[in-house]
Amino acid sequence: MIISADVLKAWVRDVFLHEGLSEKDAELVGDALVSADLRGVESHGVMRVPVYVRRLRQGLINGRPAVRVVREQGAAVLMDGDNGMGQVVGAAAMEEAIRRARQYGVGVVGCRNSNHFGMAAYFAMQALQHGMIGVALSNAPATMPPWGGTASYLGTNPLAVAVPARGEPPIVLDMAMSVVARGKIILAAQQGVPIPPDWAIDERGRPTTDPLQALRGAVLPFGGPKGYALAVIVEVLAGVLTGAAFGPHVGGLYESSSPQRLGHLVAAVHVESFLPLDAFLGRIDQLVREIRAVPAAEGGRVYLPGEREWVTEQTRRREGIPLASSIVEELRVLGEEIGLPMFSMGDGIADRVREVGERKCGGKKIVTGRWWE
Amino acid sequence: MIISADVLKAWVRDVFLHEGLSEKDAELVGDALVSADLRGVESHGVMRVPVYVRRLRQGLINGRPAVRVVREQGAAVLMDGDNGMGQVVGAAAMEEAIRRARQYGVGVVGCRNSNHFGMAAYFAMQALQHGMIGVALSNAPATMPPWGGTASYLGTNPLAVAVPARGEPPIVLDMAMSVVARGKIILAAQQGVPIPPDWAIDERGRPTTDPLQALRGAVLPFGGPKGYALAVIVEVLAGVLTGAAFGPHVGGLYESSSPQRLGHLVAAVHVESFLPLDAFLGRIDQLVREIRAVPAAEGGRVYLPGEREWVTEQTRRREGIPLASSIVEELRVLGEEIGLPMFSMGDGIADRVREVGERKCGGKKIVTGRWWE
Repeated sequence: MIISADVLKAWVRDVFLHEGLSEKDAELVGDALVSADLRGVESHGVMRVPVYVRRLRQGLINGRPAVRVVREQGAAVLMDGDNGMGQVVGAAAMEEAIRRARQYGVGVVGCRNSNHFGMAAYFAMQALQHGMIGVALSNAPATMPPWGGTASYLGTNPLAVAVPARGEPPIVLDMAMSVVARGKIILAAQQGVPIPPDWAIDERGRPTTDPLQALRGAVLPFGGPKGYALAVIVEVLAGVLTGAAFGPHVGGLYESSSPQRLGHLVAAVHVESFLPLDAFLGRIDQLVREIRAVPAAEGGRVYLPGEREWVTEQTRRREGIPLASSIVEELRVLGEEIGLPMFSMGDGIADRVREVGERKCGGKKIVTGRWWE
Repeated sequence: MIISADVLKAWVRDVFLHEGLSEKDAELVGDALVSADLRGVESHGVMRVPVYVRRLRQGLINGRPAVRVVREQGAAVLMDGDNGMGQVVGAAAMEEAIRRARQYGVGVVGCRNSNHFGMAAYFAMQALQHGMIGVALSNAPATMPPWGGTASYLGTNPLAVAVPARGEPPIVLDMAMSVVARGKIILAAQQGVPIPPDWAIDERGRPTTDPLQALRGAVLPFGGPKGYALAVIVEVLAGVLTGAAFGPHVGGLYESSSPQRLGHLVAAVHVESFLPLDAFLGRIDQLVREIRAVPAAEGGRVYLPGEREWVTEQTRRREGIPLASSIVEELRVLGEEIGLPMFSMGDGIADRVREVGERKCGGKKIVTGRWWE
């Protein structure tokens, strides 16, 4: 099924409004999840809606958190996420980092008491429109062994960095410290397809191509000891430094019946503190164009970090987001249960969409569904 | 040959005093280079003395730089290295970052107009004694293709992060974005040994085990596209943001006859801005011990990033630093030429060393050699 980004975003927002989030937070969660689907990072997109909803209902995530600053010194801030959704906590942290960076040139904000925040790039990219470089990292439930070890200790611990450009797409690094994001193994499991043998080990430490075995075992770090070392540093910055849970003490997203208590660290660097913004943007454009001009090995061309995702986003904004039928089915079941049906929307393009209904929720009128004509 | 760290350090200091550096800077360069040898990172140790000396004599490095702040905003500072030695510029930048971090919780300092700074961990580790987490990164001459490309554009772009602990060694990540540091290929070339086939490509883009072919070709990024993406980000932060040269515009260390004009970025994070230092150190010790307790795959045990280097340093402080004879020979030639002979020092231990001579240099009395009895 192909669905327009705006339609999908509105539906996700409505779901989370229904589940008790404030309008602002529901809007944000919809935007964050659909941004991932737009960029082709389906593993961190709307496929996560059902598990978030389940955890909200079980009281394992606080839908109405009072995210607050608990410690600060100039450019450095520690926030408590009050067990809110990771997207809400992460975005609030990045807003704070941007404020600090405007005043002090740099802002670094750690968060404790948070939850799975989805695609790290979403938060790093908040900085772009402010003429800043954004950084976002998070720890995660233990699914990866230390290098040379046979049992999980570290999370896949994503790191994202976003760099503004002028005439070129922004440079956006967003990577898990595992060979692949665990979300891609979850996706393979949902779709029933095998995974490559170098992605993960099973419960007994043997390489496996079965995504279900891999999910019970451990994902391997990318680049061997270097990926492991980076994962440790992310664990230190996002977990240890913030007072969050770290290592195997972080709660699982799917299995666990306790709050995740995970941590993030985000940072914003005000370009103008170093170079005039215009000079910087010109230099970035030069870097991008020079890298792209390097002769490619096998036809095609060289891509910058985040460039393929940017191209995917442009296409999907125009033509809609293709959703796997297994995910659509899960969302449809959820939507019907709470009176927010996801209609069968055909495979048209965004401008064939119209709104088809509305209802009251928390005293507010919200759109409940939209058709693709 | 095995040589005591103190003897080696004094000799390196004397060499650079002779080459016109200030006493403070010569001392610093000796300390930085020998620290690398102590940690087992020979590729960034005293083997670099001859090339540094050559470049100082050719006027390609400024031995008496006026390193200065050119732009600042609270926690963010841009410095100009005045084409000084990278060690001098990097250490000055980190001192500034530490000062800013004490005031603002975080300090980020970029440098332009600098040179090869050796082992990145040296600068990151400056932060440890101040109860801070240190970060250091640098760009470097283009020796690595972008992912999918056949020609060099990026440097190996080292990144180091140092985290203080209490009862455990500090956690120290220090890595090049290449499969290996280029220095390790230079070392292999000097020792005439082949390199593994996945380290580098030759001039025509083919894998090679010949270190000389590899040095004419390109080193490959570690972890494929992820190592490439990290190298781009380091290039942006150390090169583009600082106004330094970037990509192939950075001057080579060995070949080029122009200043390198490379850039660094260092940062310090004041732990106390986030958590009481004591609580943080206890949590780091816990992390270290828990990771070390993870069952290992093949006998032995799991190591933390930087732990092997720390163990090596303890041993070498006690028992001396083993130097390859090819390196000793180069240093001996240099020493004899300038009247600072490196004596043959046997293979004893540090406390068998005594000073054997002194001379005047720039009006100051300096030790010119020490024997191991």
